[in-house]
Amino acid sequence: MNEMLLLGPGPSNCPPSVLQALAQPTLGHLDPQFLELMEGLQEDLRSLFRTRNALTIAVSGTGTCGMEALLTNLIESGDRVVVCVNGVFGGRAAELLRRLGARVESVEELWGRPVDPEPVAVALAAERTKALFFVHAETSTGALSDAKALAALAHEHGALAIADCVTSLGGVPVLVDEWELDAVFSGTQKCLSVPPGLAPITLGPAALDALDERRSPPPSWYLDLDLVRHYWGPQRTYHHTAPVNMLYGLAAGLRLVREEGLEPRWARHQAAHDRLVSGLAELGLEILPPPGARLPMLNAVIIPDDVNEVDVRIGLRDRHRIEIGAGLGDLKGRVWRVGLMGENARPEVVDRFLAALAEELGR
Amino acid sequence: MNEMLLLGPGPSNCPPSVLQALAQPTLGHLDPQFLELMEGLQEDLRSLFRTRNALTIAVSGTGTCGMEALLTNLIESGDRVVVCVNGVFGGRAAELLRRLGARVESVEELWGRPVDPEPVAVALAAERTKALFFVHAETSTGALSDAKALAALAHEHGALAIADCVTSLGGVPVLVDEWELDAVFSGTQKCLSVPPGLAPITLGPAALDALDERRSPPPSWYLDLDLVRHYWGPQRTYHHTAPVNMLYGLAAGLRLVREEGLEPRWARHQAAHDRLVSGLAELGLEILPPPGARLPMLNAVIIPDDVNEVDVRIGLRDRHRIEIGAGLGDLKGRVWRVGLMGENARPEVVDRFLAALAEELGR
Repeated sequence: MNEMLLLGPGPSNCPPSVLQALAQPTLGHLDPQFLELMEGLQEDLRSLFRTRNALTIAVSGTGTCGMEALLTNLIESGDRVVVCVNGVFGGRAAELLRRLGARVESVEELWGRPVDPEPVAVALAAERTKALFFVHAETSTGALSDAKALAALAHEHGALAIADCVTSLGGVPVLVDEWELDAVFSGTQKCLSVPPGLAPITLGPAALDALDERRSPPPSWYLDLDLVRHYWGPQRTYHHTAPVNMLYGLAAGLRLVREEGLEPRWARHQAAHDRLVSGLAELGLEILPPPGARLPMLNAVIIPDDVNEVDVRIGLRDRHRIEIGAGLGDLKGRVWRVGLMGENARPEVVDRFLAALAEELGR
Repeated sequence: MNEMLLLGPGPSNCPPSVLQALAQPTLGHLDPQFLELMEGLQEDLRSLFRTRNALTIAVSGTGTCGMEALLTNLIESGDRVVVCVNGVFGGRAAELLRRLGARVESVEELWGRPVDPEPVAVALAAERTKALFFVHAETSTGALSDAKALAALAHEHGALAIADCVTSLGGVPVLVDEWELDAVFSGTQKCLSVPPGLAPITLGPAALDALDERRSPPPSWYLDLDLVRHYWGPQRTYHHTAPVNMLYGLAAGLRLVREEGLEPRWARHQAAHDRLVSGLAELGLEILPPPGARLPMLNAVIIPDDVNEVDVRIGLRDRHRIEIGAGLGDLKGRVWRVGLMGENARPEVVDRFLAALAEELGR
């Protein structure tokens, strides 16, 4: 494999210590050494999520699997759920919820904009609602929404606040306890710089109550959190075989996060973003979301009319060994998605990208 | 991590080339190099399953996730399914099927015995049945069932044959096309000696028809095979981010299987089993399943009445760095489960285990 600089929507490049951790000898999933690693990993995840939630673990699947773990456990057929849709991933949640038999009320927003709390409040007030689902950091548009305000709205109306923090976790503040987020999922391959394959999740007291109050078991056994938590908890009841080596990698990635500290890590992502925006401006390029709602780690760059967007991406890939992302859904052909995630949120990376882009654009 | 000799029910020890493959630099999940690796991986999986099925892929989760991928896609609410239960894993399938709203007819067999086709035929004949589910290699009891005969029975009654080959694949013949198995799932951490985290599956024409004929989409989006197959197929439609590094590991493991050849690999497992059985006999120990229905790679050893089974397992672990498995469910405290899977199906491994066991038993 020829190494690439991964500046797409994820995965990001993994540091050597994470890759080396993956290659450690596999242990049994009930081995005392491994169980100790899982304990430390849960502690590190709690610090990362800024939470004291006991049920803070890594689901054995990718970020979408984390979304499914939360929704399939917290929502039952007939439940009303308000879903904020301002990009691909809100739409994905709405689709899954419909499959689970939920009554879905979608609140649509222009792609590239953050979620507007006003229509959300109207939707919540209309009828008794089990949960509000929103995407904190929309990977398809680069928009950052106000998770604290949306969680407060949900609670005003007696609804659970469920947040997709796949792209935000580790790159911008995700303050689960302070913002009173009831259930949050993320992925490993974005700002944690760990390969894809695991989904960190955390559930607070109201979410645990929702698990306990289910009228019937969820339609999944693999993701049944009532069973999964007894494997991660002190009982260590066998459920499924944990992805041992992936968890080694996550533990190594979380160690790096802990050593750096969250505040410096957030600042590093912001600084890289600011440097990128300045450099893009010099090339006459702009970011789609409005100032104040821009994700530092995922930059949706508006493609100029006179540019063949595919040629630029292929040129970056073949001549510069840099991967960036294409637009998805409504934004296909309209934006490039430039990720500066985890290890890649560094000035030298930004400069390398800007130089390559300038060359490809002939500017 | 201190390395252990993993002679439990899986994971087994991974060869160095597999572990090193995991540590290769992460690529984007749509990178041409990675897509090429996925192509080769599908070809290798087809050889391993002895099938020409186009839809032969690795699901992004562990073996249980593979079970769920098949059942949640092939079975709908109201469908009648006959489930053979001769150990933990048949019971798990029955539980999941009930959650999916299926009408489950369980055919129970004594744990440690293979599935008896006679009562299965009676159950199939009783009513129109969508599918027969059985476990080819019961990891909880060490019993091998006759997959070919059971598949033929299913087809006689117009039912799909769905087989759990988690523990058998790569260690004993699993001849998907010759036996006309409609849908099969497996795991990576048994006879393939790849870390846990992926579930190889294959679906034949009748299973694909069942996907097409669904009355409603499955209650999972992550495991929706109609979407997943368009990511693995030539369209390469984004669905979820593949677990890139785990797939590197699987590709490396499958390369070793290809280089060894399946027939020699099956023979190696059988020879290791025969050596173990002889050695156990010298220690006065017996295997639970009857001759002819014994899995070579998973040996349920009957615990003598005068032995403290926990002490022996802890002694093996702490003094000899060997992990073996405890009994599950009905067999808790009655058997040890000794795995000789993949890399560990070798005479020197058997001899090391027998010497350690003799020491712990004081025989």
